Amino acid sequence: MESRSRSRSDNQTAEDDSRLSTTRRIQRLTLHLNPNPTPPESHQEQQQLLQRLSCGSSRVKLEVDKIQLSIYMRGKYRDIQDRVFEFFNSRPELQTPVEILKDEHRELCWRQLLGLVREAGVRPFRYVAEDPIKYFAIVEAAGSVDMSLGVKLGVQYSSGKKRNLLSLWGGSVLNLGTQKHKDKYYDGIDNLDYPGCFAMTELHHGSNVQGLQTVATFDPLTDEFIIDTPNDGAIKWWIGNAAVHGKFATVFAKLMLPTHNAKGVSDMGVHAFIVPIRDMKTHQTLPGIEIHDCGHKVGLNGVDNGALRFRAVRIPEIIFLIDLGMSPGMENTQIAVTIATRYSLLRQQFGPPKQPEVSILDYQSQQHKLMPMLASTYAFYFASKHLVEIYSEMKKTHDEQLVADVHALSAGLKSYVTSYTAKSLSVCREACGGHGYAAVNRFGSLRNDHDIFQTFEGDNTVLLQQVAADLLKQYKEKFQGGTLSVTWNYLRESMNTYLSQPNPVTARWEGEEHLRDPKFQLDAFRYRTSRLLQSVAVRLRKHSKTLGGFGAWNRCLNHLITLAESHIESVILVKFIEAVQNCPDPSSQAALKLVCDLYALNRIWNDIGTYRIVDYVAPNKAKAIHKLTEYLSFQVRNIAGELVDAFDLPDHVTRAPIAMKSEAYSHYTQYVGF
Amino acid sequence: MESRSRSRSDNQTAEDDSRLSTTRRIQRLTLHLNPNPTPPESHQEQQQLLQRLSCGSSRVKLEVDKIQLSIYMRGKYRDIQDRVFEFFNSRPELQTPVEILKDEHRELCWRQLLGLVREAGVRPFRYVAEDPIKYFAIVEAAGSVDMSLGVKLGVQYSSGKKRNLLSLWGGSVLNLGTQKHKDKYYDGIDNLDYPGCFAMTELHHGSNVQGLQTVATFDPLTDEFIIDTPNDGAIKWWIGNAAVHGKFATVFAKLMLPTHNAKGVSDMGVHAFIVPIRDMKTHQTLPGIEIHDCGHKVGLNGVDNGALRFRAVRIPEIIFLIDLGMSPGMENTQIAVTIATRYSLLRQQFGPPKQPEVSILDYQSQQHKLMPMLASTYAFYFASKHLVEIYSEMKKTHDEQLVADVHALSAGLKSYVTSYTAKSLSVCREACGGHGYAAVNRFGSLRNDHDIFQTFEGDNTVLLQQVAADLLKQYKEKFQGGTLSVTWNYLRESMNTYLSQPNPVTARWEGEEHLRDPKFQLDAFRYRTSRLLQSVAVRLRKHSKTLGGFGAWNRCLNHLITLAESHIESVILVKFIEAVQNCPDPSSQAALKLVCDLYALNRIWNDIGTYRIVDYVAPNKAKAIHKLTEYLSFQVRNIAGELVDAFDLPDHVTRAPIAMKSEAYSHYTQYVGF
Repeated sequence: MESRSRSRSDNQTAEDDSRLSTTRRIQRLTLHLNPNPTPPESHQEQQQLLQRLSCGSSRVKLEVDKIQLSIYMRGKYRDIQDRVFEFFNSRPELQTPVEILKDEHRELCWRQLLGLVREAGVRPFRYVAEDPIKYFAIVEAAGSVDMSLGVKLGVQYSSGKKRNLLSLWGGSVLNLGTQKHKDKYYDGIDNLDYPGCFAMTELHHGSNVQGLQTVATFDPLTDEFIIDTPNDGAIKWWIGNAAVHGKFATVFAKLMLPTHNAKGVSDMGVHAFIVPIRDMKTHQTLPGIEIHDCGHKVGLNGVDNGALRFRAVRIPEIIFLIDLGMSPGMENTQIAVTIATRYSLLRQQFGPPKQPEVSILDYQSQQHKLMPMLASTYAFYFASKHLVEIYSEMKKTHDEQLVADVHALSAGLKSYVTSYTAKSLSVCREACGGHGYAAVNRFGSLRNDHDIFQTFEGDNTVLLQQVAADLLKQYKEKFQGGTLSVTWNYLRESMNTYLSQPNPVTARWEGEEHLRDPKFQLDAFRYRTSRLLQSVAVRLRKHSKTLGGFGAWNRCLNHLITLAESHIESVILVKFIEAVQNCPDPSSQAALKLVCDLYALNRIWNDIGTYRIVDYVAPNKAKAIHKLTEYLSFQVRNIAGELVDAFDLPDHVTRAPIAMKSEAYSHYTQYVGF
Repeated sequence: MESRSRSRSDNQTAEDDSRLSTTRRIQRLTLHLNPNPTPPESHQEQQQLLQRLSCGSSRVKLEVDKIQLSIYMRGKYRDIQDRVFEFFNSRPELQTPVEILKDEHRELCWRQLLGLVREAGVRPFRYVAEDPIKYFAIVEAAGSVDMSLGVKLGVQYSSGKKRNLLSLWGGSVLNLGTQKHKDKYYDGIDNLDYPGCFAMTELHHGSNVQGLQTVATFDPLTDEFIIDTPNDGAIKWWIGNAAVHGKFATVFAKLMLPTHNAKGVSDMGVHAFIVPIRDMKTHQTLPGIEIHDCGHKVGLNGVDNGALRFRAVRIPEIIFLIDLGMSPGMENTQIAVTIATRYSLLRQQFGPPKQPEVSILDYQSQQHKLMPMLASTYAFYFASKHLVEIYSEMKKTHDEQLVADVHALSAGLKSYVTSYTAKSLSVCREACGGHGYAAVNRFGSLRNDHDIFQTFEGDNTVLLQQVAADLLKQYKEKFQGGTLSVTWNYLRESMNTYLSQPNPVTARWEGEEHLRDPKFQLDAFRYRTSRLLQSVAVRLRKHSKTLGGFGAWNRCLNHLITLAESHIESVILVKFIEAVQNCPDPSSQAALKLVCDLYALNRIWNDIGTYRIVDYVAPNKAKAIHKLTEYLSFQVRNIAGELVDAFDLPDHVTRAPIAMKSEAYSHYTQYVGF
């Protein structure tokens, strides 16, 4: 804190300073002003000082073998990711500049995709079915180059799914079409001759597929379907690839069939139709189709979202709905956390009187902002890896239970992780102060591009309700003696144990060993989920009698969403604990254990109110959890450099000048022209 | 929730559908598919349904007199704000388009400012000293037109203050200069002939003024000061108005005076100097000065931030530091909340089976996102109004106690409100789904432009520490029998009452009347602050012995920041309660009381862990607070339309098509070209 006491007298001194002689001015100024601070001490002294200042523990910093940790963290398909990174590193003209107009960005994004597919020979389409893990690794790497590119790629190739970003053109043909469709479209989709769109969302009806109003009337005379937009609210809106590049669209519409009743037609519900939208040669919009540009977006301006209206468009094709898919990758959080952590280690600010300034990551407040976030990034990485694995397994086995599991887990993880990431990207920006605000340091575009991932299927709120609904279904089955799915398995034991009151003895245990025991952590996470599940089931039953099913659900909506988040957190923790246990290298394992404990205890502390209301933890234990969380943040800060290095993101991927591994400041001054 | 059970059988049906005759296809499809839902019921039935569904209360909706509420909410200076709005409404060519390149945006922003000052005759400079409330009303209105314009205006005119956005060129001359300076510069600053900058921040040293390294060496032979940038880290960075338009800069540098000691000079600490940076006629950068553009930012690209290096630049002027200022206005939160609320009332999604869809604001989850935010927007409005009033009072009386009060309150409110606003803008965007992502609906630019307000003085963390430091000072004075400042006055009573244990009887009171009693609410807020203050004082004393002052402070940093936030929340609540009590119109008063209760109880619930750990509230009371908060959100939802109307923002100020008062959807379809 600085002194503010000088200003008044200085100001009065200044009033008449122009009348004073030079010598008198110097004398007077000398009298009023502070002396020079003493010069900084040596680096070694500073280190000792820090050790003493920051958290005061006598324990030594954990030694981390960065290479080993990085090998454990690297996915199986890092090679193909490196091929993506290397291609763009070798083609600077294909890299997205900091400032670019919407129309130019779209053309560049299309050239990036063409380059990747036709020049670098990265062909994602085959992996959609053959090797989904590899496919997602490519999407992730493309998204690291420019998130617009990742989305554009996804629009073209991804798997069919109603409620998911990746539910798009290629995948809809591949998964939902007949063999005839596949023969006709496969090569063109693969080599980008047939760019296409996934036209589900309407202006009035985003998430509610059953509320869609576009109509496909079957004409028995010609064996065709006639697609119509009956009103403005039914205009297809936000359709990626539609404004500029798309040649085809998978259009969702109510199928109307001729019947013998009074109306003459019958609404058969929503189906998907393949509609050619532009001429293959001239690229002119086809007759009966009106396309407008949805315009400039907050981010992702490399993707050309359009709005489509149909007027008696006749087509022969129909395909059907299916409901599977994946959540987006974690690469962007890793990039943001890497930039914020490296900068916080580099940047110095204030310090003890007459001492050198300290790194801003030595401030407890900065550790509090960034270290639990770094821990969550690790946690999400393992959970996401698990999801990709079971998704891949599901594609091979078509096991029905696995399909349900993947659906609920992907909905929940996608929702939970994207909400968390959106907040984190803002915190990272803020943690880097003014330099975080320079566009070249990337937080702006990372945030603006990521933002919509929270909403791609309506709203994360909708997805979390699906998770809650699934949990309730499992809850009912439990009491009917049915089997529980793998992901939900823990509820079986939890429910029996936790319906009784919390144990008043363990509620007071506050030793570090106990708090860092995975058993305590898992129990705490699961207790909360089980309790929320049991209580919401009771409330739903009660309110259903007076409000009906929909009313009761709405009355309990916040409760249901909390339940879903709680469950997802349990799953994330389980996967993190497993990842720690499975790590073969002892130094990496110790580092991961530290990070995992921070993740678990920070989550418990963030929801300490819930635990206190039911006296699951006594006041002394709550305080011990808080204290240990701060201590673990400090411990993780000590290996923060190694932890972000283990993400293994080269400088030409992170790109932010303030996060360069060496000489960050000189990269930055060079960037602005000095 | 939709059915997902059909897809598998449909898909198999599709496999061979091309081989079937038309009639058989129709038959088979008819068998497999769902029938048409029944048509929607009447509007009246829907309303009754909603009443029953949403929160199930038998109480009727509060009738609000929008005009009266709006009159109470309008500031004293709405006339001059309307003049700003009308000027830009009449000059469409001066309105900022959705997509604009950085350089064009800067030129446009400068033309906007020139238009406002020279054409509309709005002359802010005189009000900086004469009538600060009016000055801030102008800044706020300009910021509503384009936040870049508000900042550009602030850079040119605002009051001198180290740690604040508004601490800039004009104000530094006005407040810190001698009469000679004022005579020389006043008119040119007022009429924009002399655009200028405030050059404090350096690349390595943002917030730490005492760490600045730019040097001003006094030359006794010529009676001049020689300004030098000794190294790259000392380059002045982020200087608004420097990259393009500025002719002068107030430069902060260490004053070096000749002495008789061995070094020959003595460092007299940091002072401010007026430095001409561009030629008045040619606009060429002057000799010895190197200026580069800081480049594209996440937002606020209408402001030309530059980086400056000085090489032996000789100047005759010196002025001095002072430390006062204001927090930014609330207009942008009002705009965002208005857009999100109007859209949520308009947009319909899902609904009970066979019933019409319901407005998304009828969902408990949407109420949970937006209604406490709407309540906070009201709360911040009254707190901010109070701050402007005491600031204005201070400028008239120069009362020292008031100066300290204004400083601490402005630092705290600015920090608290900008952090909250940044989060809220993201939530508003998300609450509007995909349409919130369309740039034309403004959340992107509101968020990106606002974002840096969290960091303008380093980091909000720094400001909150100033508040905490002030509280500790007051705490010490209390025990030494000294007087407490007005804002902190409550600590006197609080401390005596609250150092004892919470009352186990009132801890169980859970009646609505009790929970909505301002006395309970204030007690709860103040209890928390007093407790945090007392405990951090004890911790600081303990750790100081082993870690020294800086180390102890850092060890308690999170605690100190929580304390500062808690204090600011108390002040906000006090001002809100006063505003409710002072409202002359009964219907407006009832509406404000509802909103105030939601603000208070939502804050208590958000921090329920703290209250539970010390048993200030018993479990039954905690649950009652939660339930009442949900109920109040529902009640506020019922008057949400009137509450945002009372902000009295015309459509040409909110501008987002999805928030037009009527025909929002048709505004939107017209915008994209249908």
